[in-house]
Amino acid sequence: LLTLARDLRRRRARERQQLFVAEGIRTVEELLDANLAVHGVLASPELARSSRGAALIAATHARGIPYLEVSEAEFTSATDTETPQGVLAVAPVPDRSLEQLTIGATPRVLVLDAVQDPGNVGTMLRTAAALGAAGTVALPGTVDLWNAKVVRSAMGSLFRHHALACPTEALVAWLAARDIPLWGADMHGDPVSAGVAPGQLALAVGNEGGGLTPPVRAAAARLVSIPIASTVESLNVAVATGILLYELRP
Amino acid sequence: LLTLARDLRRRRARERQQLFVAEGIRTVEELLDANLAVHGVLASPELARSSRGAALIAATHARGIPYLEVSEAEFTSATDTETPQGVLAVAPVPDRSLEQLTIGATPRVLVLDAVQDPGNVGTMLRTAAALGAAGTVALPGTVDLWNAKVVRSAMGSLFRHHALACPTEALVAWLAARDIPLWGADMHGDPVSAGVAPGQLALAVGNEGGGLTPPVRAAAARLVSIPIASTVESLNVAVATGILLYELRP
Repeated sequence: LLTLARDLRRRRARERQQLFVAEGIRTVEELLDANLAVHGVLASPELARSSRGAALIAATHARGIPYLEVSEAEFTSATDTETPQGVLAVAPVPDRSLEQLTIGATPRVLVLDAVQDPGNVGTMLRTAAALGAAGTVALPGTVDLWNAKVVRSAMGSLFRHHALACPTEALVAWLAARDIPLWGADMHGDPVSAGVAPGQLALAVGNEGGGLTPPVRAAAARLVSIPIASTVESLNVAVATGILLYELRP
Repeated sequence: LLTLARDLRRRRARERQQLFVAEGIRTVEELLDANLAVHGVLASPELARSSRGAALIAATHARGIPYLEVSEAEFTSATDTETPQGVLAVAPVPDRSLEQLTIGATPRVLVLDAVQDPGNVGTMLRTAAALGAAGTVALPGTVDLWNAKVVRSAMGSLFRHHALACPTEALVAWLAARDIPLWGADMHGDPVSAGVAPGQLALAVGNEGGGLTPPVRAAAARLVSIPIASTVESLNVAVATGILLYELRP
């Protein structure tokens, strides 16, 4: 389990094995709460010392999940966090596809178009889940959704919210088949205001520095923007996503 | 300058000397652009190797700002960043008070009520500046606005946006004297929607875990919320701030 956790820090290993690492007390708690399969839990001796940690260990045992305690140094060798909390879980990447995405009458779908910062992507997943989006689709160039920092920043929302990665053409075809228009966030787009959104909507948000990619721009029915002061270059991409999703709510 | 920069990592030293550290190429560029006074620039040999770094050195010399190059190891000893970019500036904390805050006919003032994460606070300053707030007031319990990570996350907005710290009573008196109502963000408040905001408005956002403090809650004329899905505990505080400031724009 220790070797596996170390190995899963690489995207290629996660993709080959279809496993990911959830690290930190809260993230592992959320993982257990979400009733997803869990391959095993790795902990340092520190975990048992807090009551919250002890409860987590008990929950792991109650679920019959393999549990391994290693030394502080070994645990640290498997994580990238600055202040590890002494617990991580290895779990299978949930099997999700566009076809399985359940949409209601007025769905919102968030599209991540080459968004690269894992902290931003985690916050965007949390925001999309909180604001009721049916799902989030990560297009090529976006950081791996199962990167440990994305998992941590998403604060559990990745375990319940239907988030998946797929090629741009697959998304465009899926949207077209359901008559869901794709709008893109772009600083030169129309200023958004409440009440302008169509019933169904997919909203694409682009890379922190470069904006939308050409294929997404080409597929977008409309570009929208949030007007900002000229003294500021841009909003943080997660903040912009929150404003747009809220403003364009059904 | 090296000893000073090291010393200024402590809040007490920043407060005593009324100096702060701006670190990273972009942050130092923004500081020079903002035409604030600069005490000195400290760099590692790495800086001169990029054309952007060389331009920054030239701009420093052109402004007659003291410039000191130290070894990579010495530079690293003065920073807390994981991947330092080889440049930091030491500058006087701008002299700002509530009295100096210029407000138009429909001002928005953001109030940080014990918000503790420096990355969140930096993003909130950037958001307030971008969305046209007249100023941001940090109340007791909020991380120091001149903490190096806040400065970095604010991406230059701290140098132009009128952000300052003051006691809660001083803010409440200032708002009362100008008839500016204080609204607070609270998960049990009225759901916000566009068009409900008064002409003048101060918006208080509370601590990531604990929400508003009792004195701010007591001073608030109204509590507002962003409705979220029951499966998610909360929005990120910077995302929530962006949505509220946009939704409650004049």
